[in-house]
Amino acid sequence: MIIPIADRMSRIGTETAFAVSLEASQLARQGKKIYPFHLGDMNILTPSVVMDAAIEAMKQGKTGYAPTAGIPELREALAKNVGTARRLNLTADNVSIQPGGKPTIGKFILVVMNPGDKVLYPSPGYPIYESQIEFQGGVGLPYGYKEGRDGFILDLETIRRSIRAGVKILIYNNYQNPTGASSPPEEMEELARLVLKNNLFVLSDEAYFEIRYSGEPMSIATFPGLAERTVILYTFSKKFAMTGWRLGAAIGPVKVIENISKINVNDESCSNHFIQYGALAGLQGGSEGPAFIIDTLKARRDVLVEKLNAIPGIRCFTPEATFYLFPNVTGAMQRRGINNVEEFRKVCLHETGVSFCTRRHFGRPLPGETEQYVRFAYSGIDLAQINEGMAKLAEFLT
Amino acid sequence: MIIPIADRMSRIGTETAFAVSLEASQLARQGKKIYPFHLGDMNILTPSVVMDAAIEAMKQGKTGYAPTAGIPELREALAKNVGTARRLNLTADNVSIQPGGKPTIGKFILVVMNPGDKVLYPSPGYPIYESQIEFQGGVGLPYGYKEGRDGFILDLETIRRSIRAGVKILIYNNYQNPTGASSPPEEMEELARLVLKNNLFVLSDEAYFEIRYSGEPMSIATFPGLAERTVILYTFSKKFAMTGWRLGAAIGPVKVIENISKINVNDESCSNHFIQYGALAGLQGGSEGPAFIIDTLKARRDVLVEKLNAIPGIRCFTPEATFYLFPNVTGAMQRRGINNVEEFRKVCLHETGVSFCTRRHFGRPLPGETEQYVRFAYSGIDLAQINEGMAKLAEFLT
Repeated sequence: MIIPIADRMSRIGTETAFAVSLEASQLARQGKKIYPFHLGDMNILTPSVVMDAAIEAMKQGKTGYAPTAGIPELREALAKNVGTARRLNLTADNVSIQPGGKPTIGKFILVVMNPGDKVLYPSPGYPIYESQIEFQGGVGLPYGYKEGRDGFILDLETIRRSIRAGVKILIYNNYQNPTGASSPPEEMEELARLVLKNNLFVLSDEAYFEIRYSGEPMSIATFPGLAERTVILYTFSKKFAMTGWRLGAAIGPVKVIENISKINVNDESCSNHFIQYGALAGLQGGSEGPAFIIDTLKARRDVLVEKLNAIPGIRCFTPEATFYLFPNVTGAMQRRGINNVEEFRKVCLHETGVSFCTRRHFGRPLPGETEQYVRFAYSGIDLAQINEGMAKLAEFLT
Repeated sequence: MIIPIADRMSRIGTETAFAVSLEASQLARQGKKIYPFHLGDMNILTPSVVMDAAIEAMKQGKTGYAPTAGIPELREALAKNVGTARRLNLTADNVSIQPGGKPTIGKFILVVMNPGDKVLYPSPGYPIYESQIEFQGGVGLPYGYKEGRDGFILDLETIRRSIRAGVKILIYNNYQNPTGASSPPEEMEELARLVLKNNLFVLSDEAYFEIRYSGEPMSIATFPGLAERTVILYTFSKKFAMTGWRLGAAIGPVKVIENISKINVNDESCSNHFIQYGALAGLQGGSEGPAFIIDTLKARRDVLVEKLNAIPGIRCFTPEATFYLFPNVTGAMQRRGINNVEEFRKVCLHETGVSFCTRRHFGRPLPGETEQYVRFAYSGIDLAQINEGMAKLAEFLT
């Protein structure tokens, strides 16, 4: 029979970065030594305080359904933790526990976006924003980043232009994947002003809020009038090295959160029960576990930034947050006579084993975009391998 | 600000049975002794072979992302296990691991149903079918069950009539929640014939396929020509008492499964990594754990059926499968002069503490439906409590 596939499936996207993983693992099977900078995954063990509490809860029989919005203790602890860090008054009613950070993206869009609504989203950016917007019949309008003095800055002109074209929703990912960008306070303030003035609704993807090496984190929800129009994407994945555990939350105005929890009932009933006790222990367990993760990542960042900047034709910022670098490789490509960044990626992979993603894995290039970028993730590779891989890459590109 | 809630949210449903849980727990907090027959949850511990393997995998660092469709070992083991039990040739490509059984419902509908498509679904039935059909813009056409000699039988006349009205998709839940119905072979054969003849696509919800007390289970996918047009909803929840772990699978034609996995990428990335090793150990771990669960449930069923049938005005089948009973309480209601089944439920709850759901929690009554039914679940209540609760109910209703 001819299987009927619904029309909407032609509009769903994917993470094309998975193709890089596949290519790298195929080469590895052929005996090639691979340096995995393409992974957004972490090779750091989850803190034992989280593991122990999850195992204890499992053995005590927390193996039945949890409440659909999460166990009350975790919702309360998260409201307090997230509220304190962002100077917001939150209660458990503002929190809907999710099986990961990612589910908040699709559910947010289902709850606040009608078909035909215009939605601003970052490009380069996490590709699921665009995919979910288009899957649910919205019109995605991308905005980009520019190189500032110390890091990437928002293209506010494009944002203003899209707002004039009737945008209703803004997706904002401060501490950004893939650029590593942190909004300076004045940039975030201007964005908050635009949101308020134009009555936008906001998804603030704060997955990397706590993956910071210096300075104090800021949330757009903290600005006056913003909390009531912002849903925060929270995840346990990075702070506690729990990517594969799948636990996160949607945090925001009660009315939106109640609707998101209605989708929980329909989609997956609830998030895993005993894991919620593990996460609770993590939140209550002091800063030792998360601090070890940050220290480990910071050491990798410092080495990787230095090694990248030492290669002719590559320049790279030192981001204060995330575990990504987004070096400009335009010069290095020119030196080798390569115009296409995907070709550059493949040559580097095959010649040196150094595997990374490119700007193309994070959205279509925007009009006027001439510089070439690649993304190095350092969450899934040890210091020794960073040194070894970068030596090979430097040799190849010098 | 006025929060924009998208129009589609007016079409999403819920599980109204949660309101019964809430009512029961409020009474319990007031000191009332509650006998929880309303829960579809299980108070049986997950087999230790599953727990041990999950803990081992967690400690070995299976805490990063899993492949989006599941770890290959589990997909292969499930293809073999499910294929053998249903006489189907399945491979890992036919399997997409899900965070529970429920996610398969929404994803199946997203993949095969266009807005406006007509979909047959059972009523009484699991309320998420109707909710997801309507949420995604489909037209749900309910079909009911009738009392046969030994159990409930499908209303095939209604199914035939809806097929003539242009139905494209059939949702079929053999070993049914809430009726406990098992299709006799000739009934399933006739349904398969109708599906083939009218080129329907099928979701076969087989959540209770292995919760059987006698006889051999049957799947509609086994009939010639059906496997290529059927997606099986599989879950680890019941067989391994893993309701709160959230692990299941969509199993079916490769093209549909690939599309379902594309939705995995967009919705939740993957299911929990280390739990998949626990489930794998369960599948490979012999029948001891599942057999204990079945024995426990069977003892409860036998007592509960006997006690219900001993109450004047109640008659109840002895289902071969599921952990639900769907007694006809028309006579008991008449004896007490109650017309409304929800009123009957509340009176029983408040007078005796015996808490159960009614037909109304599983869909709107169908035209011509005159008999009154309630649902007793015996998965979350021990034998001693069954005896005590039923004694109180019998006293109250006699």
